[in-house]
Amino acid sequence: MKFRIALAALLGAGSATAQPPSVPSGMQWLYGSGEGGATSIQTYHAFRNYVLAVARQRPRNSVILAEGATLAAPRFVPCGRRPLAVVLDADETVLQNLGFEYDDATHPGRTYDQQRWNHWEQTGANAVLPIPGAVTALAAIRRAGVTVIFNSNRLAANAAATEAALNGAGLGPARHGTTLWLQNDVAPGSAKDPRRAAISARYCVVAMAGDQLGDFSDLFNARGLAVPERRRAATSGAVANLWGNGWFVLSNPVYGSGLRGTIDDVFPADRRWPADQGGNH
Amino acid sequence: MKFRIALAALLGAGSATAQPPSVPSGMQWLYGSGEGGATSIQTYHAFRNYVLAVARQRPRNSVILAEGATLAAPRFVPCGRRPLAVVLDADETVLQNLGFEYDDATHPGRTYDQQRWNHWEQTGANAVLPIPGAVTALAAIRRAGVTVIFNSNRLAANAAATEAALNGAGLGPARHGTTLWLQNDVAPGSAKDPRRAAISARYCVVAMAGDQLGDFSDLFNARGLAVPERRRAATSGAVANLWGNGWFVLSNPVYGSGLRGTIDDVFPADRRWPADQGGNH
Repeated sequence: MKFRIALAALLGAGSATAQPPSVPSGMQWLYGSGEGGATSIQTYHAFRNYVLAVARQRPRNSVILAEGATLAAPRFVPCGRRPLAVVLDADETVLQNLGFEYDDATHPGRTYDQQRWNHWEQTGANAVLPIPGAVTALAAIRRAGVTVIFNSNRLAANAAATEAALNGAGLGPARHGTTLWLQNDVAPGSAKDPRRAAISARYCVVAMAGDQLGDFSDLFNARGLAVPERRRAATSGAVANLWGNGWFVLSNPVYGSGLRGTIDDVFPADRRWPADQGGNH
Repeated sequence: MKFRIALAALLGAGSATAQPPSVPSGMQWLYGSGEGGATSIQTYHAFRNYVLAVARQRPRNSVILAEGATLAAPRFVPCGRRPLAVVLDADETVLQNLGFEYDDATHPGRTYDQQRWNHWEQTGANAVLPIPGAVTALAAIRRAGVTVIFNSNRLAANAAATEAALNGAGLGPARHGTTLWLQNDVAPGSAKDPRRAAISARYCVVAMAGDQLGDFSDLFNARGLAVPERRRAATSGAVANLWGNGWFVLSNPVYGSGLRGTIDDVFPADRRWPADQGGNH
């Protein structure tokens, strides 16, 4: 019965006379719903309020983890007398990649293709919108004298197009090498800690924002960190207290490192129902 | 090619020797990921900080829309000298319904069944966990002398089991008729405005939390409000300023009124890509 329903839906989606494909629920929520938009606005209200309050009373420490710190025992890069800055990821943190996700939604079943994403970086600058709440928050933060810096895993080779996307959406100024840092800028690969260290050498970073835990520390992407351990690392101890207090997370149920896990990873063994089935699984 | 991949996945899921079903991405994000957990903690940090600050300087107005108010021109119920309270939804606002969603995840393709949910209300109290951040925030709010009230669309007929779920998760005291309001308490049906009005007659409600826009005002559920209009209503004008300033939204990409919309609802016509395909859709 289950099988028949799913197969009918699939055949419907594949046939020539079919309706347009249905939109994945994560996209409906993030890009289409009042709930998703409200969540972003709420996060940017908190981000702005936090940064303006901290800027009035210069902090001793940044919110960038110091070298050798762990998630269990976080320590932070001291600020010295460096000027204040905030560091934000770009995609699904300040930018809604609507054109790319539209293309994905209209090609159901297709897998992620790095070449297609690269083409998107190069040509998609006019098919984005800012995340709700980001433009006014970043403007207020700049007015308070705090520099806004983007740290993205888009490629340095596409810097001009990414500048155009951010600036065209009203989120700028984004300028590669000063307020825009990209993959391959400091070191090869997608790890962001080397760029955070380089930014920290010039600025006191008072807040960060991102939709992936790697936007805050590469420690969350340690090889072998199981899904439940990763959630525990983010939601317990000193790290838990950072969310909304220097580290600000945007909800992204569309893609990324949060979309992993088996039944056993996601659902604790002692929280299953109906009770008589839970024990047999 | 796309079809073949999807069909293979489907056949895999349906066959007798298959792996356990894959977990829907919204559940992975909400219940399993560090990102999802961090989002909840962040929201409860903001909720607690807001309530404690407002409680120190009694507000003139509540955050409950007054009768006759509109989303375009919101007005609020005055507080008078009534004691302070906060009003929160229960499911996926303070409670993770892990047992019910586990059952859903292990039966892919099945549609929502009100009878099954009713059975869950009656028997699932031990298969929940609190939403990360909720227990400590609600405790701090109570210590500040603010009453915590739950306004849920669970059925009044199941009040004892819902009290047990909330109290067992450490979120209480929840007591039906005082700190727990349920469907059919004031009026039949799922509209929450009648219950909000009844609560407002006794309390000055300084903040609300929910995962659905209907947790804030039934105006968001007006018949005929198209998906893009609803998003616009939530993210523009005076309402936009309420998110994080009295109205606090928890992210829920698993179910509810945010999971609606066609391609044309979700993706603006002028933000499509590749550019040469967008115009032809």
